[in-house]
Amino acid sequence: MGGERIPLCEQHSPLALYEEDYDTQGQKIGQMLRKISVYAATEPTSAEADEKPKQAAKMGTFMGVFLPCLQNIFGVLFFIRLAWIVGTAGIVQAFFVVFVCVSVTFLTSISLSAIATNGVVPAGGPYYMISRNLGPELGGAVGILFYLGTTIAASMYITGAVEILLLYIFPNLKLFDDIFNSFRLLGSVILLILGTIVLAGVRVVNKFALPLVFVVVFCIISSLIGCLIRFNGSDSVQFCMVGDRPVDMTLYLEQTGTRPNCTAEGLEPMFCSTNGSCDPYYSRVRNILVWHGSSKPAIRNEPVIKGMSSGVFFDNLWSKYLKGGDILSKDPKDRGEQGKASEYYIYAQQVTSFMILIGVFFPSATGIMAGSNRSGNLRDAAKSIPLGTLAAQNFTSIIYLIGVVLIGSTVSEMFLRDKYGRSAFGRLIISELAWPFPTVILLGCFLASVGAGMQSLTGAPRLLQAIAADDVIPFLKPFQKMDKRGEPLRAIFVTILICECGILIAVLESLTALITQFFLMCYLGVNAACALQSLLKSPGWRPGFRHYHWSLSFIGAILCVAVMFISAWHFALIAIFVGVAVYKYIEYAGAEKEWGDGIRGLGLSAARFALLNLDEKPQHSRNWRPQLLVLVDEVESQKTKGVMHFVSQLKAGKGLTIVALCLEGEYAKMAKVAAAKQHELRGMIHKHKIKGFSDVLVTENILDGISCLVQTSGLGGLRHNAVVLGWPDHWKQENQWHVAHNFVHIIRTITASQCAILVPKNAHDYPPTGTKVTGNIDVWWVVHDGGLLMLLPFLLRQHKTWRNTTLRLFAIAHVEDNNVQMKADLEKFLYHLRIDAKVDVIEMTDSDISEYTYERTIKMEERSKMLKSLNKTDRSKDIQAHLEEVTQRKLSKINEDSMPSIHDRLDKLENSIHNQDNAKPIQKEGRVRFSEDETKSTNAEETRRRRYNVHKMHTAVKLNELMKNKSTDAQMIFVNLPGPPEPSSDVYYMEFIEALTEGLRRVVLIRGTGAEVVTIYS
Amino acid sequence: MGGERIPLCEQHSPLALYEEDYDTQGQKIGQMLRKISVYAATEPTSAEADEKPKQAAKMGTFMGVFLPCLQNIFGVLFFIRLAWIVGTAGIVQAFFVVFVCVSVTFLTSISLSAIATNGVVPAGGPYYMISRNLGPELGGAVGILFYLGTTIAASMYITGAVEILLLYIFPNLKLFDDIFNSFRLLGSVILLILGTIVLAGVRVVNKFALPLVFVVVFCIISSLIGCLIRFNGSDSVQFCMVGDRPVDMTLYLEQTGTRPNCTAEGLEPMFCSTNGSCDPYYSRVRNILVWHGSSKPAIRNEPVIKGMSSGVFFDNLWSKYLKGGDILSKDPKDRGEQGKASEYYIYAQQVTSFMILIGVFFPSATGIMAGSNRSGNLRDAAKSIPLGTLAAQNFTSIIYLIGVVLIGSTVSEMFLRDKYGRSAFGRLIISELAWPFPTVILLGCFLASVGAGMQSLTGAPRLLQAIAADDVIPFLKPFQKMDKRGEPLRAIFVTILICECGILIAVLESLTALITQFFLMCYLGVNAACALQSLLKSPGWRPGFRHYHWSLSFIGAILCVAVMFISAWHFALIAIFVGVAVYKYIEYAGAEKEWGDGIRGLGLSAARFALLNLDEKPQHSRNWRPQLLVLVDEVESQKTKGVMHFVSQLKAGKGLTIVALCLEGEYAKMAKVAAAKQHELRGMIHKHKIKGFSDVLVTENILDGISCLVQTSGLGGLRHNAVVLGWPDHWKQENQWHVAHNFVHIIRTITASQCAILVPKNAHDYPPTGTKVTGNIDVWWVVHDGGLLMLLPFLLRQHKTWRNTTLRLFAIAHVEDNNVQMKADLEKFLYHLRIDAKVDVIEMTDSDISEYTYERTIKMEERSKMLKSLNKTDRSKDIQAHLEEVTQRKLSKINEDSMPSIHDRLDKLENSIHNQDNAKPIQKEGRVRFSEDETKSTNAEETRRRRYNVHKMHTAVKLNELMKNKSTDAQMIFVNLPGPPEPSSDVYYMEFIEALTEGLRRVVLIRGTGAEVVTIYS
Repeated sequence: MGGERIPLCEQHSPLALYEEDYDTQGQKIGQMLRKISVYAATEPTSAEADEKPKQAAKMGTFMGVFLPCLQNIFGVLFFIRLAWIVGTAGIVQAFFVVFVCVSVTFLTSISLSAIATNGVVPAGGPYYMISRNLGPELGGAVGILFYLGTTIAASMYITGAVEILLLYIFPNLKLFDDIFNSFRLLGSVILLILGTIVLAGVRVVNKFALPLVFVVVFCIISSLIGCLIRFNGSDSVQFCMVGDRPVDMTLYLEQTGTRPNCTAEGLEPMFCSTNGSCDPYYSRVRNILVWHGSSKPAIRNEPVIKGMSSGVFFDNLWSKYLKGGDILSKDPKDRGEQGKASEYYIYAQQVTSFMILIGVFFPSATGIMAGSNRSGNLRDAAKSIPLGTLAAQNFTSIIYLIGVVLIGSTVSEMFLRDKYGRSAFGRLIISELAWPFPTVILLGCFLASVGAGMQSLTGAPRLLQAIAADDVIPFLKPFQKMDKRGEPLRAIFVTILICECGILIAVLESLTALITQFFLMCYLGVNAACALQSLLKSPGWRPGFRHYHWSLSFIGAILCVAVMFISAWHFALIAIFVGVAVYKYIEYAGAEKEWGDGIRGLGLSAARFALLNLDEKPQHSRNWRPQLLVLVDEVESQKTKGVMHFVSQLKAGKGLTIVALCLEGEYAKMAKVAAAKQHELRGMIHKHKIKGFSDVLVTENILDGISCLVQTSGLGGLRHNAVVLGWPDHWKQENQWHVAHNFVHIIRTITASQCAILVPKNAHDYPPTGTKVTGNIDVWWVVHDGGLLMLLPFLLRQHKTWRNTTLRLFAIAHVEDNNVQMKADLEKFLYHLRIDAKVDVIEMTDSDISEYTYERTIKMEERSKMLKSLNKTDRSKDIQAHLEEVTQRKLSKINEDSMPSIHDRLDKLENSIHNQDNAKPIQKEGRVRFSEDETKSTNAEETRRRRYNVHKMHTAVKLNELMKNKSTDAQMIFVNLPGPPEPSSDVYYMEFIEALTEGLRRVVLIRGTGAEVVTIYS
Repeated sequence: MGGERIPLCEQHSPLALYEEDYDTQGQKIGQMLRKISVYAATEPTSAEADEKPKQAAKMGTFMGVFLPCLQNIFGVLFFIRLAWIVGTAGIVQAFFVVFVCVSVTFLTSISLSAIATNGVVPAGGPYYMISRNLGPELGGAVGILFYLGTTIAASMYITGAVEILLLYIFPNLKLFDDIFNSFRLLGSVILLILGTIVLAGVRVVNKFALPLVFVVVFCIISSLIGCLIRFNGSDSVQFCMVGDRPVDMTLYLEQTGTRPNCTAEGLEPMFCSTNGSCDPYYSRVRNILVWHGSSKPAIRNEPVIKGMSSGVFFDNLWSKYLKGGDILSKDPKDRGEQGKASEYYIYAQQVTSFMILIGVFFPSATGIMAGSNRSGNLRDAAKSIPLGTLAAQNFTSIIYLIGVVLIGSTVSEMFLRDKYGRSAFGRLIISELAWPFPTVILLGCFLASVGAGMQSLTGAPRLLQAIAADDVIPFLKPFQKMDKRGEPLRAIFVTILICECGILIAVLESLTALITQFFLMCYLGVNAACALQSLLKSPGWRPGFRHYHWSLSFIGAILCVAVMFISAWHFALIAIFVGVAVYKYIEYAGAEKEWGDGIRGLGLSAARFALLNLDEKPQHSRNWRPQLLVLVDEVESQKTKGVMHFVSQLKAGKGLTIVALCLEGEYAKMAKVAAAKQHELRGMIHKHKIKGFSDVLVTENILDGISCLVQTSGLGGLRHNAVVLGWPDHWKQENQWHVAHNFVHIIRTITASQCAILVPKNAHDYPPTGTKVTGNIDVWWVVHDGGLLMLLPFLLRQHKTWRNTTLRLFAIAHVEDNNVQMKADLEKFLYHLRIDAKVDVIEMTDSDISEYTYERTIKMEERSKMLKSLNKTDRSKDIQAHLEEVTQRKLSKINEDSMPSIHDRLDKLENSIHNQDNAKPIQKEGRVRFSEDETKSTNAEETRRRRYNVHKMHTAVKLNELMKNKSTDAQMIFVNLPGPPEPSSDVYYMEFIEALTEGLRRVVLIRGTGAEVVTIYS
């Protein structure tokens, strides 16, 4: 045997076992890999992203992440504001200003590292990450804010550059009296130039990028080195003081063109008017020869750079916040003689405080996103992004913190606080500190600022284009377009326009405060996304960077919100308003996107959590709500619509509603049909404004299916406690005999499952939602089975359709009841139940059984007997077909003979009851033939049943008479549904109910479970 | 016919139709009413409540609600603190102090009216209401706080009474230098007396109640009338001023026993020492003849009651808050020469501020609960409670507000600010104002305070007893006991003890601050309960009082929290600590009570809301979690336990888990069995620490049942997306042939429902949670059907049981794949997926089909053929029984002949394949008999199938060899489950899988849906 087997031909692969899978839902692994590797590093929805892998070779941590981050973080504020912040806040508080800012970015860097290493991040950086993690709405809002932040950052860089240019490089260039107008004009000119370069294309801009990083780093480092080198101070620059106040020499220079000497005489033209009246402070101190704290006279030059050895550190240690308009003075109590003091002192431009300074400095800490949106271009993103971002963040943080201490311990206190260095004819501290080339550094600072502005102007349009390309924000559609060079021209123009608006603000502090808000919103998004995903622990959350924790991100998020609101709550409100507007816009107009964001994941977790925390115990009567399982047999029938109206009008119950439909068939084959029906059903539920769920079940046997639905619908503690089941109007029709059995079987199943039963009858006639019903809702209260009979009309009346109706309660009294007392008790009971209703007690007296009752009973029994005989035949056969056939045969026969013999039979029946009742011997022998045909016990049993039926029919007919009598005009009648009958009497049961409700317009039959659903207790 | 029918005998009632219902779940209405009316007005769980209806006749609004509320609201603080509050805070702020307090109680009164009219409120008042509306934990916590508040209120009343007694009535009674020690001693004495009276029984106390209300109202009214009458002021009482400072005349009187004159000379002994050195302020002003603002010298008497005409209103308009130790002075800048100033000035005892004064005054507004807990005794609670409570609340509020304005516009500024009236030898402003009998009123104030204290001492123990009787707080059990008079003796003793502690505090302001917290916590509870219930709109929430709104209650609740924290955060923390302690105690040690509280109702609403907000769309691959439907066939089998371990170890997925069991039978009969099984199932889930749901379904046919479960488990968007189905180990056993068909049928159903399938094999051997597994988890990756095969081991490894394992991925390469490239691609892919795994690519080369494969195939076909023949017989018959029988018969036959003929058959099979493969003529004629027996097409078809089977078996055997070779030591093997076969090949399928997994220890077969469940994108 073994050994010489012939090799198989290649019609089947060696993985034949899985052959079908490859064709249907599976793929070969190789196939899949080849498919994936094509677009692995690119963003599938962004057009721009397709380009990148072609443009850039894969980069390492230093060039790919560290340098871009560094370039984005270091900025103009270090040059032109840090010294002033140190002077104003003091070293200690300035340290914490910087520390708070870098803490925010540090924590955000961690969150960012986690998110950015949880898969590939294509273009759009933070926008992409947040929209994929917190949903398109939040992502869009944050993306737009980030775009605005970046654009206005360009304004800030340009304004900063103009400030350097106008104040320190070419002070003569001022064109307007209001310096800010000069900023605006010159800023616009620079923007024009930069805009032209940006339009020339990204390649041109990129050529500047690397050199500019080195310029910035060089400027900063040389300033810090300068501090160390001038350990013993330097007299190179001097500034002028009158007593405790620095003097605005620049102003005089601008006004007159002459440089005054910093002596009492030299300053006399400034402080004394031509008529000889002098500034009071100047007069007071001009003759003091040795000003306290210095060895010089009160009016004197002081060195800007005192050096660390001078101990100026201690002068600068504490904060000296001023209000706008305060005179700058070493003496904290000297706030000047406002209105009277000379204009040549230096005045604080604005109020300052710890939190305001955070708003001013914060943009210096931003820029950490620069690396993370390049993950596609990195050789090893999971390693490079965290490493590069955190390294750049830490490096800049340390530089800043060192800068604060070094500057604070080197520069003279009053000059530090003089924002624009006007007491020394306009000198920039950082450039004066710089070693070895102060003037070169000044130029460097200017270039660095312009360069940073250009970078922002290049980056922002691309961001806008990426957001637009994602197709979430319809009004951005035009900005998706790129020209053939790959430049987003339209986006560039819009960016330049917005940037110009920023430049027109002109006040750097306002710009920074605004930018701060935009960036903080964005960082908030990143932190929130990371915290949310970490907490949800979705299996999809598997960041390459492991050293994150939800608590860190959470603290980061809290810090962002706190800083936003405390630093400038009005700008925060603007930012939030913009954010909310974009959010709402996307919510209503935006494309529905399913990106698997955490918000949706959160919904799932929340639902699961809420359900798990639910007791599965039955609800206490105080909390009892009707939780409905609505069984429908067709989606679009009139009856179903009526039931839906009823269910929707019961919504005051605010409970669960599950609408279920059972189809007959084999599920494996009908899955698609079921899905379609489910869709249809959901549409109907939605149309009827029912907040509920739908279920479609395919089973081989409808009864089994309904039993399953009754047993397993709902989940955990959220289960139905009542089943709504429309009355089968067609049960009496020919061919439909099985309907009665099915109905009663379902009633039995529901009873077994301890659910209440609601059977709307004549549902097609129920008033649709929207109409206003007036009149009565009548409750016919026969049995107290928990109070559902009272609660449902109460709930119905809460709906506006039924609000104008009156509730009437007809209670059926038994013989032993005292009607008057019962009415009083009932009224009290309803009062305690807090249900308004008119009460009427109706006594069911013993009365003769009417002829009609007998007739009806006999007809009923005829039909039933026939069915019973059918039932005895093979049960496993298709009962329906069988029944149809036999029934038709028998019915025709009945129709032939029944009419003449009905009286005869009536007598027979009546007689048998009479016999049994009175236990007398049979009197009319001819009429009791049947008793001779059968054994005595069977006879007794049958007679008992017969009497039983007549009695039941009697109740039904009597109640029906009463109802027809009292409730003809009722808009809705609620009445107890009798319990399901013994197994063999299904058809009798249907007949009884028909008799009970005959001629009534709208009826709901209700059967409670016996458990109280209303309570008189608070 | 008609007319002469014989009346029915009374064996059946006229309501025969509902006869069964009366016996089972329903009651006759009359019965029910009689049952209810017995205890309608009483609390079913409180022993005390049974007494009430006997004691008290039904009362109306005035006597039943208004007066008790009035009595509880008006209190000692009006007499002894309101004037001082007006003086300190100024009329405007004092107005708002009172306004904030009464706003809180007003909003709370509304909430209270709603809750108290939503059914009967028995004893325990707020405790009862809150526990029934917010649950036993919160109710217990709030009840205890309310009890403590009431008890300490007794301390406050007693201390206040002592203050009146010692300061104003008998100033000579002081026993200690420290006035507070006198308070303590005398307070204890009064408590002793009151305690004795309280022990004498509630009847004695009640005799005082009504007269005392009138005393209080009389005192208050007469004071207010006094203000109006003395419109032009009165000189009856004068107080002494030195310059701007009132003088502490009382101190001197106490020290020396002499009353000094209020002149420079008269006061000299006070301000100048014997050596002639005088108090600097006294010296400065003693000789000023006309002190500004008065026509008198600097040292002068001023009238206490200036009268409204004097315009003192404007003096008192604004606030003059002081810090403790500040000297009282009209000049706000004059804070005195502390340490140097004389002791005879009046010093502020404590710091004051708007919020602190709220804490002082608030207890004056409390007492609104007094009416609501009497609802059982009211003639018409739904009308009386809101009316009486709101009327009393509004009446007192208006009186207080009028009082603020009247007092502020009548009394001299400095005397108002002199808390104890020491500058007029200790006069109580309210009693001085009173008209016509100031001294009587003083006594009245004293009596009213003592009376209020007595009321509190009587009420508090009853409250404690009511809480204890509810049996929620185990440690209160001893206090349930009452003596034979119905007095809760033990509770009284404890209350007196706590009250004594309060008295030892002695400082009224501390007492009020503490009481404020306790009452605010209680009001917070009432407001929160009302807001919650209004928002939940449970059908059980039907208050008789309609004019509530959730927003009012919500504002009330917010106000409570705000006032608590701002007025005295440290006391708030104490109150919250006590509350949390009691809450936690009840949570852990308390009896589990189901009172249908809103918290549980909230859970239901929350779950419903969360589910409704869930998309029913399938989850994005980023959010994909395994949501498992676990089908088990037995609860306690080893296999089920293993599956449970596996499922519980997958919990890192944090998804939904539904464990379902299907029973065969008729539900209507087996409902109880099902419930028991469900309980068992839930126990098992709990034992395995799986957070999930259980379902038990009874169906006539297991397959239908499982189909239902697969289709309808879960709810709304919370549906399973994967089904766990243990491998049926016993399918090959005799009598179990149907198992194979069932299994494959279920697999088909699951596939149709778009769910993934997980089939644990050899589950009995799975490691239980708690053990630590080391070694490898091996994934054999044949088909890529969405990535579930990678995700599941990743999730499993998150569990501590599997944390120390290594994931190895064996990918099966096809001939067309480049192994080296594929391995690199795979590694990159897994890197992007962020899943750590060792990758190995294994090529399935074409190899000869082994003899073993042929043998297995033949055996399989034998078995299958037999089954197929069975299947052709009547499908509707009980397949199982039939199969068993026929199978046994055939099996015995097979066992006899199969062994000798197997080689023959093998040849036959092999040959047929060979023939077909090479399309050559049949060579060995003798061996192809069967092709002659059948038509050509059938032959071709069968041959095709045969080849097909051999190929499939070949894959299974080959893969199995590879797995056995590479993964023998694997702790768990994951491998693709092949798709379900064509309808007729169920048994083949089972055989293939057996072949695939033979000899492997723990295997999980997985079949995804083709939808991606992992993604490389962020």
